Amino acid sequence: MNKIQTYINENKEKFLNEMFALIRIPSISSISEHKDDMYKIAELYKTYLLAAGADKAEVCETKGNPVVYGEKFLDANYPTVMVYGHMDVMPVDPLDLWKTNPFEPEIIDGRIYARGANDNKGQSFMHVKAFEYLLKNGLLKCNVKFLLEGEEEVGSPNLPAFCTENKEKLKADIILVSDTSMIAPSIPSITTGLRGLAYWQVEVTGPCRDLHSGLFGGAVANPINVLAKMIAQMTDENGNITIPGFYDDVIIVTPEERKMMAEAPYNEEEYKKLIGIEEVFGEKGYTTNERTGIRPSFDVCGIWGGYTGEGAKTVLPSKAFAKISTRLVPNQDYKKIAELFKNHFESIAPKTVKVEVTHLHGGYGYVCPIDIPAYQAAEKAYQKVYGKCPVPMRSGGSIPIISAFEEILGIKSILMGFGLEEDAIHSPNESWPVEQFVNGLETIIYFYDFFGEK
Amino acid sequence: MNKIQTYINENKEKFLNEMFALIRIPSISSISEHKDDMYKIAELYKTYLLAAGADKAEVCETKGNPVVYGEKFLDANYPTVMVYGHMDVMPVDPLDLWKTNPFEPEIIDGRIYARGANDNKGQSFMHVKAFEYLLKNGLLKCNVKFLLEGEEEVGSPNLPAFCTENKEKLKADIILVSDTSMIAPSIPSITTGLRGLAYWQVEVTGPCRDLHSGLFGGAVANPINVLAKMIAQMTDENGNITIPGFYDDVIIVTPEERKMMAEAPYNEEEYKKLIGIEEVFGEKGYTTNERTGIRPSFDVCGIWGGYTGEGAKTVLPSKAFAKISTRLVPNQDYKKIAELFKNHFESIAPKTVKVEVTHLHGGYGYVCPIDIPAYQAAEKAYQKVYGKCPVPMRSGGSIPIISAFEEILGIKSILMGFGLEEDAIHSPNESWPVEQFVNGLETIIYFYDFFGEK
Repeated sequence: MNKIQTYINENKEKFLNEMFALIRIPSISSISEHKDDMYKIAELYKTYLLAAGADKAEVCETKGNPVVYGEKFLDANYPTVMVYGHMDVMPVDPLDLWKTNPFEPEIIDGRIYARGANDNKGQSFMHVKAFEYLLKNGLLKCNVKFLLEGEEEVGSPNLPAFCTENKEKLKADIILVSDTSMIAPSIPSITTGLRGLAYWQVEVTGPCRDLHSGLFGGAVANPINVLAKMIAQMTDENGNITIPGFYDDVIIVTPEERKMMAEAPYNEEEYKKLIGIEEVFGEKGYTTNERTGIRPSFDVCGIWGGYTGEGAKTVLPSKAFAKISTRLVPNQDYKKIAELFKNHFESIAPKTVKVEVTHLHGGYGYVCPIDIPAYQAAEKAYQKVYGKCPVPMRSGGSIPIISAFEEILGIKSILMGFGLEEDAIHSPNESWPVEQFVNGLETIIYFYDFFGEK
Repeated sequence: MNKIQTYINENKEKFLNEMFALIRIPSISSISEHKDDMYKIAELYKTYLLAAGADKAEVCETKGNPVVYGEKFLDANYPTVMVYGHMDVMPVDPLDLWKTNPFEPEIIDGRIYARGANDNKGQSFMHVKAFEYLLKNGLLKCNVKFLLEGEEEVGSPNLPAFCTENKEKLKADIILVSDTSMIAPSIPSITTGLRGLAYWQVEVTGPCRDLHSGLFGGAVANPINVLAKMIAQMTDENGNITIPGFYDDVIIVTPEERKMMAEAPYNEEEYKKLIGIEEVFGEKGYTTNERTGIRPSFDVCGIWGGYTGEGAKTVLPSKAFAKISTRLVPNQDYKKIAELFKNHFESIAPKTVKVEVTHLHGGYGYVCPIDIPAYQAAEKAYQKVYGKCPVPMRSGGSIPIISAFEEILGIKSILMGFGLEEDAIHSPNESWPVEQFVNGLETIIYFYDFFGEK
C-alpha cells in the first residue's frame, strides 16, 4: 500500500461520515420547498473547503439557488484547476421503490445507498478530500478553485449568468468534473462527449371541465386520446424523430470514428439483463452505444391526466399533460430545437383541443479533445491507479453547464467520472461503491501531480 | 298551487336538510377507505324508509358494500313498483377545482352544490319523499319496494348475485329509476336506451427500473412512448375503433329511427359553448346525438407514468399506466369486448415491453319499449307537471345493473331522470337545481297515480 492509499484507508471512516452529512440534506432543486436545504448544504460545503485549507470560501447568491466558490492560490507560475460539482439532487419519487431511506445513507455490500451517493455529492466530495491531502502534505503544484452549484439537476438556469458576471474570478486552465460514469470498475474511461438537452412540458385541453364519459364519450375529443396520438407521431417505426428540421445540424460521425467506438466493450445480453428488457430499441442503422453516444433521442419523461386513483372511474378528462425531453448531440442548438418542437407539436394539434408547450430547460452538447495536457494528465492518473489506459467515451447524458463554460469562460472541461452504470442515479436505490470513492480519490490526487508537472 | 305543490313547498326546508344529511356522508365506493361510510349511509336510508312508512327496511350484506332493501305491501291486486337507486358516489378529485366542499352542500343560485347532489343521492331521495307523501295521504295504489345499492359507480359488481339470491323478494311489475338526465328544464325526456361499458387498466413495463434518460435514452424503448403509440392505434382518423371484431354485434339503427332521433332539439353552438370546445369530434358519418346514443366510444379515462411533479426531471421510466373504457351499445357483449380488447392490445405490444391488461368492470346496454304501461304512466305524469309530452331519448351513459335486472329478474326499468346536462355529475362542482327536485318529486307522485290506475 502506497502512502496515498494508507492515508485514505486510515481516514475512510471520517471521510464517509463527512460525505453522509452532505447526503442527509435533501437538496432537491426541482422542488421549491427544499430551498432552505440548498443554503444548508452550501454552508456545509463552505465549511469543508475552509477546513481542507482553502484561502477563502463563500456562499454566493444567484437568482436561484446559491453557488459555493472557494479558492487556494499558491503560485502564479502554477496552472489553475477549477473543480466543478453540484450540491443538488434529483427528486426521490417513487419513494415506495426505495429499499432504504434516500436521505439516510446505508452501506450494504460495499455500496453507499442514498440519493446523491454518486450524483453528485459522493463524486464532488472526492475533490475536497484530494485537495486537502495535497495541501496538507505540501504536494499541491496547482492553484485550485472550486465552483459548486445548486441547480444542475434543473439545467443550471442561473450559473451561466454567474459565470458571465465573474469571468475574472473564474479564470482557470482547465475545469475538472466528476459527474459521469466509467465503463466498469476494471475498464476505466474518460467521458469525451456529452449530449445536449431540450425539455418541455405540454398541456392538452379538451372540454373546459371533466365530463361524464358516457354522456359525452364518442362526441367530444378526449385530450388523453389526442395527446397519445400526438406523442405517437413524434417518432416513426424506425426510431427516427419526425420533427421537421430536427436532424439538420447533427454531425454525421465518420465510419472510422464509428469503428473506434465499436471497439469499446459491450455485451448486449448483459446490457439487457442489467435493465431487465427483452429487446433493445432505437434508431435503425445504429448500435446501442451509437444510439446514446452520437445520436439524439426522444423520451416522454412523464405523463398524466384524468383519473389515476384506485378502481375504475369513468371520466372524459378536461386536460392531459406530458413532460418531454430530447437528448441532443454536439452542434445541435437546444434553443433552435426548442422552437422546432414547439412549432411542430402545436401544428399537429387538432382543432378539437388547445395545446400549450412550455420549454422548461436545455443545454448544448460537448466534445473534449484527447490531445490537451489535462486529458493526458488524467490518462496517466488512471493508468497508475487502475493499471490501464482509460477508454475515451461519448456519454449519452447531458451536463448543460459544461458547454456553457466553454462558451462563456473559454475553458475546456475534463470529465473524470467514477460512477458506474449500475449506480441507478436519478432512480430509486441510487448507490455508489465505496471502492470507487477510494480509487477515484487516489486518481484525482495523481491528476494534480501530473498536471502540475507541466 | 295544487295540493301536492303546497305540501312540497311547506316541507322543502325539512326535505333538503334530510337530503343534505345523506350528502354529508362521503360514500365513495371506488376508494376502500370509505367502507365505513357505506354502512353509515345505508343506516340513514333505512331510517328514512321506516320513517316514510315502510313495513320493513333492512341493511343487507353482500360481498362488497351493503344493499338497503325496504318494502310496503298494501294489496295483492295492486301492481308492484321497485325503486332502484344508489347510495355511493364518484371520487371528488381534482379537489382543487371545487368551489365548495364536495361533502358540505351549499345552495347557490337555486342549485345544490355537492358530490351526489344529483347522482344519485338527490334523485334517489325524491322517491323516498314521493312514497311518504302517497302513503301518509292514503293515496298509494301500488305496492312499493326499495333497492338501494352501494356500488353503482364501480359497476355494481355484487348486485347481480344479490338479485339472483333474492329473486322472490325482488318480484315487481316495473323498476323505477331516477339516475339519468332530461334534455332541459323546459324539455322533459325519458331515457329509453343506455350504453354498456367495458373498462380496463393497462400496465406497460419497459426496463426493470427507472433509467437515466441521457445514459439510456435512444437505446431502450420508453414505456410511455410505447403506451402512447398503442393508444394512438386504437382509433383511426375517422373516429373508428380499430379493435378487430369490435363492431360485429352493433345493431345498425334504421334510417327511420335516425330521422326520429334527429328531431330531438340540439344546438351545436350551445353544446360546444357549454363544455368549452371549438369543435366536436367523433365517428365520421354520425351526428353528436348518434355518437353518444347509438354508437360505441373509446376513451382513455386516466393515464400516468414517469415524473409528474414540479419542474423538469429527466427519466426514462420503468412503467406507464392507463385506464381505458369503451361505451357499448345494446347487443354488444361487454365480456366479449373485454376479451377482444385484451387480445388486441397485447398483440400490438412490441417485444421491447411487457403489457398487462386487467378488465376492471363492465355492463350491458339497455333498451326500454315505449308501449308498456309504466312508460305510458310516466309520460302522463311528465305531461301534468311540465305541460309537455316527454321525448324518448337514448343516453350515452351506462347503468350496468339495468340490463342485469332484465336478465336476472325479468323486469324492465323505466328511467325517469331529473338531472340536467349542466349538473356536472362525476366532475368537480356537481350541482342540481332545487327546482328539479321539486318538479321531479311531483312527477313521481303522479306516476304512482297513473300506474296504480291500471
